Amino acid sequence: ASTEESRPTKVQELSVYEINERDRGSPAYLRLSQKSVNSLGDLVPFSNKLYTGDLQKRIGITAGICVLIQNKPEKKGDRYEAIYSFYFGDYGQISVQGSYLTYEDTYLAVTGGSGIFEGAYGQVKLQQLVFPFKLFYTFYLKGLKEDLPEELLGKAVEPSPAVEPSPAAKACEPNAVIANYTE
Amino acid sequence: ASTEESRPTKVQELSVYEINERDRGSPAYLRLSQKSVNSLGDLVPFSNKLYTGDLQKRIGITAGICVLIQNKPEKKGDRYEAIYSFYFGDYGQISVQGSYLTYEDTYLAVTGGSGIFEGAYGQVKLQQLVFPFKLFYTFYLKGLKEDLPEELLGKAVEPSPAVEPSPAAKACEPNAVIANYTE
Amino acid sequence: ASTEESRPTKVQELSVYEINERDRGSPAYLRLSQKSVNSLGDLVPFSNKLYTGDLQKRIGITAGICVLIQNKPEKKGDRYEAIYSFYFGDYGQISVQGSYLTYEDTYLAVTGGSGIFEGAYGQVKLQQLVFPFKLFYTFYLKGLKEDLPEELLGKAVEPSPAVEPSPAAKACEPNAVIANYTE
Repeated sequence: ASTEESRPTKVQELSVYEINERDRGSPAYLRLSQKSVNSLGDLVPFSNKLYTGDLQKRIGITAGICVLIQNKPEKKGDRYEAIYSFYFGDYGQISVQGSYLTYEDTYLAVTGGSGIFEGAYGQVKLQQLVFPFKLFYTFYLKGLKEDLPEELLGKAVEPSPAVEPSPAAKACEPNAVIANYTE
Repeated sequence: ASTEESRPTKVQELSVYEINERDRGSPAYLRLSQKSVNSLGDLVPFSNKLYTGDLQKRIGITAGICVLIQNKPEKKGDRYEAIYSFYFGDYGQISVQGSYLTYEDTYLAVTGGSGIFEGAYGQVKLQQLVFPFKLFYTFYLKGLKEDLPEELLGKAVEPSPAVEPSPAAKACEPNAVIANYTE
Repeated sequence: ASTEESRPTKVQELSVYEINERDRGSPAYLRLSQKSVNSLGDLVPFSNKLYTGDLQKRIGITAGICVLIQNKPEKKGDRYEAIYSFYFGDYGQISVQGSYLTYEDTYLAVTGGSGIFEGAYGQVKLQQLVFPFKLFYTFYLKGLKEDLPEELLGKAVEPSPAVEPSPAAKACEPNAVIANYTE
């Protein structure tokens, strides 16, 4: 626990899967650039589902916006500036900002948190498995007052394009969700 | 005061009222989803007025954007991802990010600050009093170098839909504003 | 280096120039307010080039969005809420949020970072030299694990409207860029 004298700097690792099951109307690609190629001016609000790294529990959702920065024809992809939060039901939220490259893994900044994530800082690794439907994240969190709860710390399924949440988690069955998982 | 060895973790509580007096053209509801129901794709830039918790002084403004994430018909409301700052005139600014639910109180992350709020972290409780015109916030701030100034710490008026700033504060009279209050 | 017991609070100063060379299609002024005067509702995604303070090396880019908050006719300018990141190639990224006033210098909050900037907090001073094409920033960074690399710390050229990157930096010659500078 924290004291008045120092802020915890222990690193706590946390893995989650973000999966777009195409049932949330996400992403909303706003082609505000009015150009035929993805261009600066395009905005992409999004919200996907979040599962624990072991894919046994539904956690909640992501929510935020991607700002298209540049189309990279030589990479067959795009650079976005991503500003979003990860919602963990009653546990609270982690907010992040940084680059989302559709062709390459990146690290983003953890900008803060609420609930058990109050005071969070550090960074998160984003790995894309199936564009833009499956992503795997590894948070390296500092600043947390307490150790993370066990149910979030199950051994992560090795990231691959084929991973799927357990049927129970996908169906949000009572034993396969965290408390008040974010819908 | 901070030293080179530790960052302050004392919690300082700060209450403010955010009030939309309908004279700033805010919010600007951008129905970019082009749907008749609020939907992902809609964006809502906004800027409202800020008063001290005791409603005796005009502080400044809020400024930022809400990203519509999901309409919740069963709650008769909406989930937004909110990214904005609170401006306190010469004192500086606090930035926050998190969920704004039109039907429920939430906690948001404090992501940083400037001026006397440089280095701020922690969380803030958002309470909605009159949708979307009156909100009450309680910041739980850590990381501040100094104690907050007295004029921001007056005893907060109990939050209720009927609260109003003092006429002097509303009129921005010289004794009812903080120094260089943000307009 | 940090320990498990405390987070570094030493202030490290870092100067950079942000220059719009008009070759990135930036900014994209989205007049979503549909008004003839800049108004709340307008959004401005942008991405410009970044150079070291001594203007001898290309560092990378900025990337993010400005939210128009208010036109200030008496100042002949605008208030924006700015949410963006500074990309430093292999070194990583710094994210910031705060006000951008087209008529006045401001301080913004540093909300986080990645790479060598992991854990960054503090504030940054924004000085506008030529609207909106040349800006000078002085970061006051805390929370960094290590001292900043020498190549970022060259003596800054005195900010003035006439400053230009060295021709080698502008041409991104191998000796005038940082490692894997962000394009």
